[in-house]
Amino acid sequence: MIVIHDPKVLQQTALELRAQGKKIALVPTMGNLHAGHASLMDIARPLADVLIVSVFVNPTQFGPNEDYDKYPRTLEADKQVCEAHGVNIVFAPANESIYFPDASTFVNEHACSQGLCGRSRPIHFRGVCTVVNLLFNLAQPNVAVFGQKDAQQVAVLKRMVRDLHIPVEMVVGPIVRESDGLALSSRNQYLTARERAAAPQINAELQALADLAKTESDSKVLAKHFMDALGQDAVFEPEYIEIVNNSTMLPADKIEAGNTLVAVAVRMTESRTRLIDNIVL
Amino acid sequence: MIVIHDPKVLQQTALELRAQGKKIALVPTMGNLHAGHASLMDIARPLADVLIVSVFVNPTQFGPNEDYDKYPRTLEADKQVCEAHGVNIVFAPANESIYFPDASTFVNEHACSQGLCGRSRPIHFRGVCTVVNLLFNLAQPNVAVFGQKDAQQVAVLKRMVRDLHIPVEMVVGPIVRESDGLALSSRNQYLTARERAAAPQINAELQALADLAKTESDSKVLAKHFMDALGQDAVFEPEYIEIVNNSTMLPADKIEAGNTLVAVAVRMTESRTRLIDNIVL
Repeated sequence: MIVIHDPKVLQQTALELRAQGKKIALVPTMGNLHAGHASLMDIARPLADVLIVSVFVNPTQFGPNEDYDKYPRTLEADKQVCEAHGVNIVFAPANESIYFPDASTFVNEHACSQGLCGRSRPIHFRGVCTVVNLLFNLAQPNVAVFGQKDAQQVAVLKRMVRDLHIPVEMVVGPIVRESDGLALSSRNQYLTARERAAAPQINAELQALADLAKTESDSKVLAKHFMDALGQDAVFEPEYIEIVNNSTMLPADKIEAGNTLVAVAVRMTESRTRLIDNIVL
Repeated sequence: MIVIHDPKVLQQTALELRAQGKKIALVPTMGNLHAGHASLMDIARPLADVLIVSVFVNPTQFGPNEDYDKYPRTLEADKQVCEAHGVNIVFAPANESIYFPDASTFVNEHACSQGLCGRSRPIHFRGVCTVVNLLFNLAQPNVAVFGQKDAQQVAVLKRMVRDLHIPVEMVVGPIVRESDGLALSSRNQYLTARERAAAPQINAELQALADLAKTESDSKVLAKHFMDALGQDAVFEPEYIEIVNNSTMLPADKIEAGNTLVAVAVRMTESRTRLIDNIVL
């Protein structure tokens, strides 16, 4: 396994591999790697000759009052996770090698990015699209693997790849959870003890909603049920629950089995940590 | 020479060529090919193993009241020009194979695209960046050749390529002119006889400005001189003259030899044809 910091070196390496007919898989991450990321590497590993993991806390996808500064950076531990999961190249660039001081080009997706997290994080998906677009240009992957945990990100990026005819196969890995059901996230470590103890209820109520959806198909009724259940504990401040088409992220009034996503964002009131989770009905 | 209409076929062909280590050059055009386009093919030809010319009148770079519908489409003649200039692949896609009905992804450049033509054509460069980005994804070029005639387009696209780390070498071919100095353009055929007779004055006054700039370095004085000269003939309705940094397209108060661009757009009052021209001082 090698570690590359310089984007030009990564790109030159990747272009040479492709010119030799080698297949490249990319798993883009913001580092602080956990079992969720590792599962994506395990999915990607058999799909390509060369597995690249990028570790880059992307400033353009954080809003001015978000957790960019405190987002955990743990490159040495991340390298060990990568090594253990068969990664060939870790790409860990510095900000200033990715973004020029007068950078003025952005990739915008205007449909799938509007609801859900896009409502409270207006520049988030512009940053995500831009950085993933340029990471594709640098790493030259045939296939890229993303986690279903960020379901809206998956929809937005699939739309970008389709619209811009980007020759990258998009593969999505399932959500990995703690044994008590909490979806793995680098942000879980921000939680207070009380929040951590309560947090699995988010997934439990999503599961309850999925059960209820077997007999109740009205999205409004389902959403209210979730909000009422979570609202009973003051540690939860639900930001949204949206029941949407899994491809377009547009509101789904009625459940369409296999194609309807329930996505939630919850603010935890003690640490102000924002957690997201989702389930496909 | 082969003609490909299907984007998927072009992309598959291009990816296979790259996987064999072949070098690809792309000349993106809107068709109606003239000696200006041919000169770009001649520049591109020795730079690669495979020369691709795209012929696509891109709807997203035309405003609602612009000449998209009447823009000349002459594919059979275009093929002959390509054949004569050593082109290997002509890519002539249908609109609906490039843009999905619910396309929602655009590439935006926010600095170089703001002045000059960007002022009167607010969505133009968004369309240009988006289509060139996706043409690069389809044709997989190592090198792309553009004409200096569209100087702002060159600056905007170079910025996009830099910011998104697109691995395409950008080459710029000089403006090709009629013997009387009029810059070649597919839009010249819209001109009335009187307009056509007068039009070479645009280049003549740019040349006069360049001469004057040897002794006069104040941009405002130079611009006024040009406007006054052209204003004497009612067939010209100058839209702008801007003296800018050749890379950033930002106003240059003083001339910096080799790095200052004078760009003009002139509306011809009889046919309402909009002509552009430029000169590097």
